[in-house]
Amino acid sequence: MAKRGMLIVLSGPSGVGKGTVRKEIFSQEGNKFDYSISMTTREKRPGEVDGKDYYFVTKEEFENEIANGGMLEYAQYVDNYYGTPLKYVNEMLDSGKDVFLEIEVKGAMQVRKKCPDGLFIFLTPPDLMELRQRLINRGTDDIAKINKRMKTAVEEIEMMQNYDYAVVNDEVPRAAEKIKTIIRAERWRVKRFLPDYKKQLGDALK
Amino acid sequence: MAKRGMLIVLSGPSGVGKGTVRKEIFSQEGNKFDYSISMTTREKRPGEVDGKDYYFVTKEEFENEIANGGMLEYAQYVDNYYGTPLKYVNEMLDSGKDVFLEIEVKGAMQVRKKCPDGLFIFLTPPDLMELRQRLINRGTDDIAKINKRMKTAVEEIEMMQNYDYAVVNDEVPRAAEKIKTIIRAERWRVKRFLPDYKKQLGDALK
Repeated sequence: MAKRGMLIVLSGPSGVGKGTVRKEIFSQEGNKFDYSISMTTREKRPGEVDGKDYYFVTKEEFENEIANGGMLEYAQYVDNYYGTPLKYVNEMLDSGKDVFLEIEVKGAMQVRKKCPDGLFIFLTPPDLMELRQRLINRGTDDIAKINKRMKTAVEEIEMMQNYDYAVVNDEVPRAAEKIKTIIRAERWRVKRFLPDYKKQLGDALK
Repeated sequence: MAKRGMLIVLSGPSGVGKGTVRKEIFSQEGNKFDYSISMTTREKRPGEVDGKDYYFVTKEEFENEIANGGMLEYAQYVDNYYGTPLKYVNEMLDSGKDVFLEIEVKGAMQVRKKCPDGLFIFLTPPDLMELRQRLINRGTDDIAKINKRMKTAVEEIEMMQNYDYAVVNDEVPRAAEKIKTIIRAERWRVKRFLPDYKKQLGDALK
């Protein structure tokens, strides 16, 4: 039996640019992991392809999947469901392939509970440190509004604690390269490397 | 105050090629970490430079350092002491620099206890899986000797559990590149990244 693949989860606050970074990663050759396509009930937009951008399903089909325990994670945004079908992910992992998910933070926390051994990467905005100064300099927001934005920033950073790695999305190619470096390095973590290595040694001892 | 640097420890079984891989890493430009030079009581060999290859000291000087708590780790091999002076390592870490140690496994375990947050990389021989077959094919060792070597191999692998990463030394440039990838990625681990990020945010909230 093949060594089970690694589940890679890229997440981060809404608007941080997860999709753009993910597309940058998958526009490059030589990745040793596959992208898990999400399922959604929202309307297909012009140019989108079923089974490539999303699996487009009806609300009833999605709710059936949920009822049958067929979703690894899901969430509702603006009356539509978004989620990751479990079947495809499991098939890939079982065949030894690493699987890459790009999902919202709520979904990521559902996955963390089910797959604690996954690799969780948090994409974080570059401007948190400069945010306040920029907001003040701009002079359009009052101090209450600035403080509210800073509070949201703090909450976002707190979420980071549930992840293994954090990458600042200052430039998309740079963030993509860092994420690929993390995925490479993570394969040599002893907890991932040792079981397989021991198994091979076990075979050698026979 | 600068963020404290990361302590990087490369270790592995005797004869695995730690020194060769370390030299390969430091022969390259652009490393963002410094090598911590070991202290020893052994004779200086032709070509070796004091303060570059080792700090060469007398047995009395070394034992004084031990007595004064001046060694981060040390061990005795063939009547000579080898170890890492604490002072230099601490100065570099305090100034925010990452420090690279290349030490024996016993020393590495001493460091792990004192610096649990260090980055511990285990260099492992490439041939464990093939070792038995090669020994059998060679036909020079009897089965008892082969089994003893395999037992040593198993013990070496067990030590790996105390490390964060394991890298197979199949080719020196390849192993060096993997170690550099690990060091890069490790800087984005949330536990290393978050304290500094929070501090910067704290400043922004003032």
